[in-house]
Amino acid sequence: MPELRYNVITREWVVIATERAQRPDQFVRKEKRKALPEYDPKCPFCPGNEAMTPPETYVVPDTKSWRVRVTPNKFAALSYEGERKRTVQGIRRTVTGVGIHEVLVETPAHNKTTALLSDHEVELIIQTYLHRFKFASSDPRIEQVTIFKNHGEAAGTSLEHPHSQMIAIPVITSQLRDRLTHALEHFDEFGECIFCRVLSQEQKEGTRLVLETEHFVAFVQFATLTPFSMLIMPRRHMACFVEMRDAEAADLARILRRSLAKFYFGLGDPDFNYAVRTAPTEYSGVKYYHWYVSIIPRLTRMAGFELGSGMFINVSLPEENASFLRGIKVD
Amino acid sequence: MPELRYNVITREWVVIATERAQRPDQFVRKEKRKALPEYDPKCPFCPGNEAMTPPETYVVPDTKSWRVRVTPNKFAALSYEGERKRTVQGIRRTVTGVGIHEVLVETPAHNKTTALLSDHEVELIIQTYLHRFKFASSDPRIEQVTIFKNHGEAAGTSLEHPHSQMIAIPVITSQLRDRLTHALEHFDEFGECIFCRVLSQEQKEGTRLVLETEHFVAFVQFATLTPFSMLIMPRRHMACFVEMRDAEAADLARILRRSLAKFYFGLGDPDFNYAVRTAPTEYSGVKYYHWYVSIIPRLTRMAGFELGSGMFINVSLPEENASFLRGIKVD
Repeated sequence: MPELRYNVITREWVVIATERAQRPDQFVRKEKRKALPEYDPKCPFCPGNEAMTPPETYVVPDTKSWRVRVTPNKFAALSYEGERKRTVQGIRRTVTGVGIHEVLVETPAHNKTTALLSDHEVELIIQTYLHRFKFASSDPRIEQVTIFKNHGEAAGTSLEHPHSQMIAIPVITSQLRDRLTHALEHFDEFGECIFCRVLSQEQKEGTRLVLETEHFVAFVQFATLTPFSMLIMPRRHMACFVEMRDAEAADLARILRRSLAKFYFGLGDPDFNYAVRTAPTEYSGVKYYHWYVSIIPRLTRMAGFELGSGMFINVSLPEENASFLRGIKVD
Repeated sequence: MPELRYNVITREWVVIATERAQRPDQFVRKEKRKALPEYDPKCPFCPGNEAMTPPETYVVPDTKSWRVRVTPNKFAALSYEGERKRTVQGIRRTVTGVGIHEVLVETPAHNKTTALLSDHEVELIIQTYLHRFKFASSDPRIEQVTIFKNHGEAAGTSLEHPHSQMIAIPVITSQLRDRLTHALEHFDEFGECIFCRVLSQEQKEGTRLVLETEHFVAFVQFATLTPFSMLIMPRRHMACFVEMRDAEAADLARILRRSLAKFYFGLGDPDFNYAVRTAPTEYSGVKYYHWYVSIIPRLTRMAGFELGSGMFINVSLPEENASFLRGIKVD
């Protein structure tokens, strides 16, 4: 008998299709990726080709050039210049499309995906995220900042050179507003952070844990919507990403790299997205919200049922996902 | 300057990326589909191969065999047998995975997509939807029924024979609950159905209309999330799909076929999903909700930003989408 599970964070029901469930090894990528060179003369993100992008807004310098490099997205979805103006007319509401859309080039090496970097290299990326998140949040036009990565075509990118992006927008999305509201309701009713509660429940049960480090826990959620999706959650209660301390940032680098290495070696380098899900900086310190990183390998597609109902059918078992990933040894 | 638009039905903001917008003809499918035979001996949905599927639950008969045929999905996500049982334990909520998952084979012809059927053939499909929707809704274990179609691989199907599906579930999804609640709030505040208001606004402006028939209007929404997505909305206020009269069902067939013919001939037969978005039957007659059909061609992908923030970036202009589709002549 399949099971419907309720996600207490998002308030979504998911079908865990036990009968249709595929074995973990059936999700391993079959198509081999083509080997990439360390440097590609046509790549706008490779060192030496900096003129192919807009001028940088931030770099982590190196003796010769740079280790992480941030530039405005050449094809920005939002305009950095301009005023935030809201128009309300009948049932129409519009806001001018101002915001910040940056590309964060993660490494000079064209062919070094996160799984193959060193912990220290990933730490520089996390520190860059923190810097740009603070910069964007200090802009009075900005309400919400999303840091994310697209890896591979199914995840929405065709650029091979490892990079992340930041999009800072002049409104709060209904997704974030709903999560803030639901978390607050839970806090008011039960006197606890719902995320802290989920984390302690997962630690108690143990069957869906993937990795634990000093400051973070990586696990597959009880009611996860898609195969092998994982959360990396800080043990210490923090509403906003920027509340993270340096030692925690170094530890996040370690657990993020190791999680992605498990995907890389265990699932054959699948296409994936990750995103930092956090309250805006003005919520720093609130007791009811808790930031985390969500990693979503793109192994399945949304079809008409998901689009039409908002419900997902997970054709794998979260407990089997976690057990499989625990079994993949990474350093 | 890009523009953020607010979808008053879903309460989602979308970026209309004017600067990055692609021309309508850039969305035309490049890859040619392989020509299909009228009959495929290996296809479980072709006439003569009925033994390859579970026994039928409904048919529209023909003198020789059938015109539309419904069977349980062989790989059902939910179990038809069993009791609905809810378990609540700490923060865990589960429900047994009971429900109804059926396949509706739309035509005996293996190679006849909706755009190529006659109005009468599509009417038989719509009447079958109504029949199965009522059947599922009469099951006391069922809370929500979704009728949908997946066409092509990007839309989540690998089966070529034209078919739709119905999934009836034992819970209400948060997506539907939120929409019902928001629509009710709008009704209480403004004394009107928000959907009727959107429809009259679209008719007044005219720039996003695609097709109008006696009982329905097809249009691209002001704040549509993805290129060329369309709504087909009944002119008469109805909360639930099953409130539709026979003349309206015949007219829905006409506008659905013609809308899909515009995709087929104008956009090169793109992969698409459609879904009937409706209140459950118990809401029949309520003044604040309004059902419609949502058609979503799968021309773009969700990437990390959409997943991480819940906000979409539409790289086309709804007004240009509509104007392009209006220009595609279909009978």
